[in-house]
Amino acid sequence: MSQEVIRGIALPPAAQPGDPLARVDTPSLALDLAAFEANLRAMQAWADRHGVALRPHAKAHKCPQVALRQLALGARGICCQKVSEALPFVAAGVRDIHISNEVVGPAKLALLAQLARAARISVCVDNAANLAQISRAMAGAGVEVDVLVEIDVGQGRCGASDEATVLALAQQARDLPGVNFAGLQAYHGSVQHARGREERARICRDAARIAASYAQLLRESGIACDTITGGGTGSVEFDAASGVYTELQAGSYAFMDGDYGANEWGGPLTFQNSLFLLSTVMSTPAPDRAVLDAGLKSASAECGPPAVHGEPGLTCTAINDEHSVVRVEPGASAPELGAVLRLVPAHVDPTFNLHDGLVVFRDGVVEDIWEISARGYSR
Amino acid sequence: MSQEVIRGIALPPAAQPGDPLARVDTPSLALDLAAFEANLRAMQAWADRHGVALRPHAKAHKCPQVALRQLALGARGICCQKVSEALPFVAAGVRDIHISNEVVGPAKLALLAQLARAARISVCVDNAANLAQISRAMAGAGVEVDVLVEIDVGQGRCGASDEATVLALAQQARDLPGVNFAGLQAYHGSVQHARGREERARICRDAARIAASYAQLLRESGIACDTITGGGTGSVEFDAASGVYTELQAGSYAFMDGDYGANEWGGPLTFQNSLFLLSTVMSTPAPDRAVLDAGLKSASAECGPPAVHGEPGLTCTAINDEHSVVRVEPGASAPELGAVLRLVPAHVDPTFNLHDGLVVFRDGVVEDIWEISARGYSR
Repeated sequence: MSQEVIRGIALPPAAQPGDPLARVDTPSLALDLAAFEANLRAMQAWADRHGVALRPHAKAHKCPQVALRQLALGARGICCQKVSEALPFVAAGVRDIHISNEVVGPAKLALLAQLARAARISVCVDNAANLAQISRAMAGAGVEVDVLVEIDVGQGRCGASDEATVLALAQQARDLPGVNFAGLQAYHGSVQHARGREERARICRDAARIAASYAQLLRESGIACDTITGGGTGSVEFDAASGVYTELQAGSYAFMDGDYGANEWGGPLTFQNSLFLLSTVMSTPAPDRAVLDAGLKSASAECGPPAVHGEPGLTCTAINDEHSVVRVEPGASAPELGAVLRLVPAHVDPTFNLHDGLVVFRDGVVEDIWEISARGYSR
Repeated sequence: MSQEVIRGIALPPAAQPGDPLARVDTPSLALDLAAFEANLRAMQAWADRHGVALRPHAKAHKCPQVALRQLALGARGICCQKVSEALPFVAAGVRDIHISNEVVGPAKLALLAQLARAARISVCVDNAANLAQISRAMAGAGVEVDVLVEIDVGQGRCGASDEATVLALAQQARDLPGVNFAGLQAYHGSVQHARGREERARICRDAARIAASYAQLLRESGIACDTITGGGTGSVEFDAASGVYTELQAGSYAFMDGDYGANEWGGPLTFQNSLFLLSTVMSTPAPDRAVLDAGLKSASAECGPPAVHGEPGLTCTAINDEHSVVRVEPGASAPELGAVLRLVPAHVDPTFNLHDGLVVFRDGVVEDIWEISARGYSR
């Protein structure tokens, strides 16, 4: 066995353009372009109709090809959740990125300063000492970043939650070198999956009221608050119409998933499943059971196992590292060994983060594989 | 902004040799070498004492540097769960790999044939048509692989579950070209996390009895059954002592995790936590709350959130995409903004699969970063 032979063994791409979906090597993440494009158009139209900017969240997909299509349809810029996550998007030409998160630590601030040389960058703050560190790092590097004070509008995670802190942070951001005060981030994560539509509407009203009250405080203190950014796929219908938010951060709407699918929809804004995990039947050990070759390493399962798409008689009952177990319901026909099924992941964001490539298809035929370039960029 | 400037922005390594852990950029997966080495020695000694071979599972870590250390201590070979997963291990010099899973589909069989040119490879089968496909693919490529008939010893996932099927598959494997019948795989996944030690012992006794009975059937039919392979970290104490298994497949024992930590131990075989997720306190918005910069994209959470190591007053209460929320219990001191905490992931296998590098340390000082080369190789 020479090293030459071994070096010659490489993993081929999961698919080639022109392949039917049934020929894609699995597990593979796949995007139905028609549904994806319809979702992008629906969200941009909703933002336009309400006169708010759309800044879709790239943490959902980590794929520059997705962001470029959102920008081409009118998005103002994108959000990233981590400094490192922004890198592949800047390299792909994105020039307006909001890091919708606090940035703490010297390594991250050094990278932030480098990014600020190449693009317009904003970050969140909820702590005066951290803001001073950001100021020193940016001023020291001869760059500036915009700063949004994050406020807690009900989630109980990060964010300032009293007037004195919000005002002090805004004044500090206005006065320090290397940073510009740009407004407020008012994101409510836990409303996104509140199941009832009326419940989401109520929580969003409360969140918007809190955000509006802080903005009013700042204006009364002579500090312009140009941006109020927030919103997600489950809340954006209400956030856009609130008259408070100036910018929407939703990301999952382009794809949808099992957890968003479990929400009650029914309003004017709905989205289609465009994202599927292709998986092969690798064992049919009993008439009522099939085992698939996709598991926890291909679909994030903290929100439950994936669902089998378009096969109402097949239910995924368990997911292990590299297996999903499917129950064949009475009366349903069992899938054949080797058949390729479409699964709907339960949670889109961490599922994208498991894959290096996205097989994009139209009418069941592969068009391309898009690189998920920011996969694993969590620093 | 020239493209030159942008191309110059690269993500630096999370750490350098000689760095203290507090200086590692986070989130980063980190390995305590002293605990890791003690775990490897304990398991090899247990296998040696019972006269069974150790073939540790590489799906747990996907890191050739880990496998090479296990082999150096006496392991017979390794297990992989997918054909593609074996690639980086073959490239690193591992020459005896059991694919502890069924292999279905032409792309996977083509890759399997390539691997069989470079290493001794075995696979599992539980289906006659699949076995015939494997035979054709291997014989067509002029190679041979060993075949183990997978039997269901109680998990209800893959595997044959009646004597006629087991016997027919073994005869077919013996007679077809391109394949050699090598024995049985008798892995019971769900026993691994049965909490009570006595409960695990009982389930293992039942599983071993089933495996022994099939092996006896084969011998009575004139078919040698040299290998009975199986076992995991939660069952290996009993499997090794059963007198039935000839080979142990455990993997997580080298690292441990929250889910294995919740088992009742107390027998002669115990393991230490060697694997930690380093995470920085990025927000301290309330006296009883700290928010960390590691979330679902750094720690798989289908078994729950990670635990804060060595800080009994800090409890991780929620995990989101890029945040973990920590409650500061009454009387405990809150961690400072910027502090680096050690988390114990709830489930080691899918957590390794989120990281490209493993920061290895001894006595709190970084020694190296090992590449997690098979990260994402699920095909």
